[in-house]
Amino acid sequence: MQEANPTASTSIGDYLIQRLRDYGIADVFGIPGDYVLSFYGMLEQSELNVVGCTREDSAGFAADAYARLHGMGALCVTYCVGGLSVCNSIAGAFAEKSPVVVISGAPGLNERRNNPLLHHKVRDFHTQRQVFEKLCIDVAELNDPNTAFSEIDRVLDAAQRFKRPVYIELPRDMVHVVPTNSRKFQRIEAEVDQAGLAEAVRETVARLAAAQKPVIIAGVEIHRFGLQDLVLRLAESLQIPITATILGKSVVRETHPLYLGLYEGAMGRENVTQFVEESDCVLLLGTFMTDINLGIYTANLELRNCIYSTSEQLQVSHHYYHHVPLDAFLNELLAQQPTTTVREIPANLRRTLDEDFVVEPKRELSVSRMVKLINRRLRKDNIVIADIGDALFASTELLVHERADFLSPAYYTSMGFATPATLGACVAKPDQRVITLCGDGAFQMTGTELSTIIRQGFAPILIILDNHGYGTERFLHAGDWKYNEIHPWSYHQLPLIYGGGRGYLVETEGEFAEALAQAWEDTSCAQIIQAKISEGDASQTLLRLAERMGRQV
Amino acid sequence: MQEANPTASTSIGDYLIQRLRDYGIADVFGIPGDYVLSFYGMLEQSELNVVGCTREDSAGFAADAYARLHGMGALCVTYCVGGLSVCNSIAGAFAEKSPVVVISGAPGLNERRNNPLLHHKVRDFHTQRQVFEKLCIDVAELNDPNTAFSEIDRVLDAAQRFKRPVYIELPRDMVHVVPTNSRKFQRIEAEVDQAGLAEAVRETVARLAAAQKPVIIAGVEIHRFGLQDLVLRLAESLQIPITATILGKSVVRETHPLYLGLYEGAMGRENVTQFVEESDCVLLLGTFMTDINLGIYTANLELRNCIYSTSEQLQVSHHYYHHVPLDAFLNELLAQQPTTTVREIPANLRRTLDEDFVVEPKRELSVSRMVKLINRRLRKDNIVIADIGDALFASTELLVHERADFLSPAYYTSMGFATPATLGACVAKPDQRVITLCGDGAFQMTGTELSTIIRQGFAPILIILDNHGYGTERFLHAGDWKYNEIHPWSYHQLPLIYGGGRGYLVETEGEFAEALAQAWEDTSCAQIIQAKISEGDASQTLLRLAERMGRQV
Repeated sequence: MQEANPTASTSIGDYLIQRLRDYGIADVFGIPGDYVLSFYGMLEQSELNVVGCTREDSAGFAADAYARLHGMGALCVTYCVGGLSVCNSIAGAFAEKSPVVVISGAPGLNERRNNPLLHHKVRDFHTQRQVFEKLCIDVAELNDPNTAFSEIDRVLDAAQRFKRPVYIELPRDMVHVVPTNSRKFQRIEAEVDQAGLAEAVRETVARLAAAQKPVIIAGVEIHRFGLQDLVLRLAESLQIPITATILGKSVVRETHPLYLGLYEGAMGRENVTQFVEESDCVLLLGTFMTDINLGIYTANLELRNCIYSTSEQLQVSHHYYHHVPLDAFLNELLAQQPTTTVREIPANLRRTLDEDFVVEPKRELSVSRMVKLINRRLRKDNIVIADIGDALFASTELLVHERADFLSPAYYTSMGFATPATLGACVAKPDQRVITLCGDGAFQMTGTELSTIIRQGFAPILIILDNHGYGTERFLHAGDWKYNEIHPWSYHQLPLIYGGGRGYLVETEGEFAEALAQAWEDTSCAQIIQAKISEGDASQTLLRLAERMGRQV
Repeated sequence: MQEANPTASTSIGDYLIQRLRDYGIADVFGIPGDYVLSFYGMLEQSELNVVGCTREDSAGFAADAYARLHGMGALCVTYCVGGLSVCNSIAGAFAEKSPVVVISGAPGLNERRNNPLLHHKVRDFHTQRQVFEKLCIDVAELNDPNTAFSEIDRVLDAAQRFKRPVYIELPRDMVHVVPTNSRKFQRIEAEVDQAGLAEAVRETVARLAAAQKPVIIAGVEIHRFGLQDLVLRLAESLQIPITATILGKSVVRETHPLYLGLYEGAMGRENVTQFVEESDCVLLLGTFMTDINLGIYTANLELRNCIYSTSEQLQVSHHYYHHVPLDAFLNELLAQQPTTTVREIPANLRRTLDEDFVVEPKRELSVSRMVKLINRRLRKDNIVIADIGDALFASTELLVHERADFLSPAYYTSMGFATPATLGACVAKPDQRVITLCGDGAFQMTGTELSTIIRQGFAPILIILDNHGYGTERFLHAGDWKYNEIHPWSYHQLPLIYGGGRGYLVETEGEFAEALAQAWEDTSCAQIIQAKISEGDASQTLLRLAERMGRQV
C-alpha cells in the first residue's frame, strides 16, 4: 500500500479517491443522489470505475463480494435514503469480516444551521452516523478540514486491519475543500505479546510432536487475511490433513491431496466428522465458531485437544493467550519446524468427482444431483457463489479447484446475497467465469441486479432453484404454512425485460444437463437457468440441518 | 380502541396479535425467517391477514402507506437480515410521522448463553434494537414475561400518540410464554397547559378579528391526527381560503371552493405564493417546515403574521406556547367562534380541470401534460401515489377529489416508495382504485412488489415515467454525467414474468391517452403503462426546484 501523498491542492474528495486507490480499490458500487452528486462527478472523472446498481443494498452486497475477492471494496450512496438502505448488507460484511468502505454524502455543514428539516433527514444530522457505529468497525464524519485526511487514513487502516466495514460521511460542502493545516494520521501498531507467542508456539510444537491424529480446521479468516500460503506450507510440512468450515470453504484448493472436505458436525459427511472428532490435536485456524459452521452446535470437539487461533484470540486447551494473533502465530510456528505423526487419510474420505454419475434424462430435478453435474464442469477459472438455503447446503458438496473461489454469506445468512455478489465478483475478476446458485425467494429480493450484470456485459451462469417458496423454512417449521409460498415468476424470460442474456427453463435432469452444457459454451452473455425443483426436494445437508434447527423454532 | 383484555391463558404472541387488532390493524406485511416462524404460524392462524412481500424494505413502505390510509400499520420480519433491511423505510416513516409497528423475531433467550455466534447476529444481541432506537419513537424487547404486556401497550400507545414507528423484538422462546404476574401499563397522559391554551386562543381570535387577508396553510399532521373535519369547520365558519403544503396535499378535497392549491414558495404557482405571502394572518396548521414543503426555503412568510400550530409546538408571531398541541388548539379556537374578514378569492387562483386541454396525438410525451390527462379522469374513489422526482413534482398539479387520497414521501424523498406503497394502499382500501406515477429509476429499486400486487389480485394503474435515468439529478448537477443513466428495461412486458397484469408501451400523447382509457376501463388486473419521456422533459415545478437546489449541490 502506498504512503499518503497529498499535494498542496489536494481536496478532501481528491484525497479520499487517492486513498481508495492506494488500498487497491479500482471500482466503486452505488447510486447517486443529490447530497453526493458533487463527489460522484469527481469519481466519474477519476480513474475509479463507478458501477451503478439498481438498489443501494445490492451495491452493498456487490462491494462485499468484491472485497472478498479483491481485498477491499467500496460503495458510494447518498444520505439516509441511500445509506440506511445498506444497513443489512453492511451488517453482513461486519459479521463475516469483509472490509467494505461505505461512503455517504450528507447535507453541507453550512445548510445545517438551526437544524432545519432538510429532505432525507430522519431525526437529526447524526442519526445515520450513529446507526453505522453499530454496524462498522470505525466511522468518520469529514466535517473538519484539519482532520479530514487523518480521519480517512484512520478508518481505511481499520478496515484493512480488522477486515470489517467502515463508514465515511462526506458533507457536500467539504468535497472540494483543500485543507491548509492537515494533521497526519499516526497508526498505532497492535503489539504482539512476544513471550506469550513463544510460549504458545512451544506448547503447540510439543502437542504436535505427541499427537497421533492431528488435523487442521481452516476458517474464513485465512481468506480474509490472505494466509492461505502459510496454512498450506504448515499442512504440507507436517503432512496434516485439512478440513474447512463452510465459511472457510475453498480456503485451500479442494483437490489438494491433504484436503478432506468440510467439517460441519452432525450436518456434514459422517466420516469427515468422525475423522476430525477423534483427533487428539485439532488446529483451528481462523475459524468462526458459528452455529452454521458447527452444524447448529453439533460439533463435538474436545477443547483440551484444540489449539484455536484467530486474529482476535488464541486458545490452547482451556487457557488463553491475549495479543497473539493468527498471522504471528502461524509464522512463528512454521519457523520452529514442528513435526508430528503422519496420519493416513482413508480412501473413502477423499473428495471425488462422482465420475460414475450418470444423467437420468427423465428424472425430476434434485439439487444434490444438479451439484454433481456442476461439479464435473468446474475448472480452476470458475468462481462459485451460493445464496442461502439449499443453494448453500447443496453447494457444500461442490469441489472447488482453486482458493477463494467459493462465496456465500454462510454465517450471517442474508437471503439475496448471490445476484449482487455475482456482479461484484464479475467486476473483481472479469477473467473468471462465475457460476451462481440462488433460490427463487432470494432471487426475488435482489434479482434486479441481473440488469446491471447484463448492462456491464458480464456472462455469469445464474441457476435459479425454483420451488415456489422459502424451501428451507418448509423443513424448519412443520406444517403446511402459506407464508412459505411465493409468487411464481417466469425467471427465464427476464432477458426480454433486461434486453440481454439468455434464458433456459428446465424441469428434468436431462434438460438441466443440456442447458448447463449450452450455458457453459456460450460466454457471450449472462445465462439464466430456471430449474424447477419439486417442493419436497432437499439435499442431505439441509435435511440434517432442519432436523437440528427445527427444535428451536 | 378497546381496552387490553388478556385471559389467564393469553401468551405473549397472542397478546401482541390481540393488541394490533385493538388498534385497528387488519393486515401485516413481511417476510418470514427462522427466528420468527413460530410467531408467523400464530399470525397465519389469527384473524390478521399476512401479506408476503418480495423484500423486507418493500414491506416497510407498504406498511407505511397502509398506516397513512388506515391509521396504523405493521410488518413482521426475522432478526437482522430482515430487520436491518427495513431501516430505510422505517426512517422514512419516522421522518414523515407514519405509525408503523415493526415486529422482529430474535434468537431465543435460552440460546444466548455465553454469547454464541448464532446466524444473523451482527455484533451482539442488542445491535438491532440499538439501531431501531435511532429510527423509532419507542422500542421494546419482550424478554420478561412480567413486563411483556405492558411493554407492548407502551410502544403501541407511543405509535398512536406520536404517529411515529415503534419496534418490538420478540425472542422466539417467548412467543408462547403465558405471563403469570403481568404488570399493567399506566399511560401517562400528556398535560395541556390550559392557561397557555386560553391565552393562545385569545391572541388568535384577536388577530383573526383584525386581519384583512387571512389564510390557512394545512400540513401533513392534519392527515396523521385525523383533524380534517376540524380544519374544514374552522375554514368554513371563517370563510378563510386554504392552501396546503406538498406533504399536506389532499388534506381537504381539492375541489373545495375555499381551496387554492399548494403553497410551495418560489417552487409553486406564482399567484398562490403571492396570495399567501401578502397575508396578514397565516394559520399554519400541522405543517412541517421542510425544505421541499417550503420550496427549498424560498417561502417568504413574515413570522409576525403567523400562527403556527403542530402536535409538538405552538408559535404565535415570535413567541412560543409549550404544551399546547394542535388538536386542543383547534378545538378551543372553534369553541370561541372567531370571526375575520372574508377575503375574496381571485378567479385565476381557483384550481381548474384544464377542461380546454386537447390531446395532440403525435406529440412527444411530457409529464406535465400527462398529469392534465390524468386529472380529467380522477374521481373521488381514486388514490394517487407519486414516487420521488418528476412523478412527485408534476403530480402537485393533480386535483385530488377527496381527502388523504394523495400519498408521496415528499419530505424524506426516498426513491422506490411508490410501488410497495401501491400494494399497501390496495390492501388498506381495496374498494378504491390506485393510480401510481413512478420514475424508472425508482421502479428499478422496488418494482418487484408489482409481483405481490398481481399475486393479490389488485388492479392499480402503474405509470412508469421512462426517461432512462435519474431525471431529477440531470437538472440538479450540470454536465453530461454517466452516473444518471440507468439500464433500459422493457417494463411493459413484466406481466410475462409475473404471470398477470396488462402492459402498455406508449411514446406519444395519443398513445398515452388511449392506454390510459383502456387501463381505466380494465379493472380486472394491474395495468402497467410504460411511458417513454424524452430526457429533456421536466415539469415547471421541477425546473423551479432544480434552479434553487442546484446551487447547493
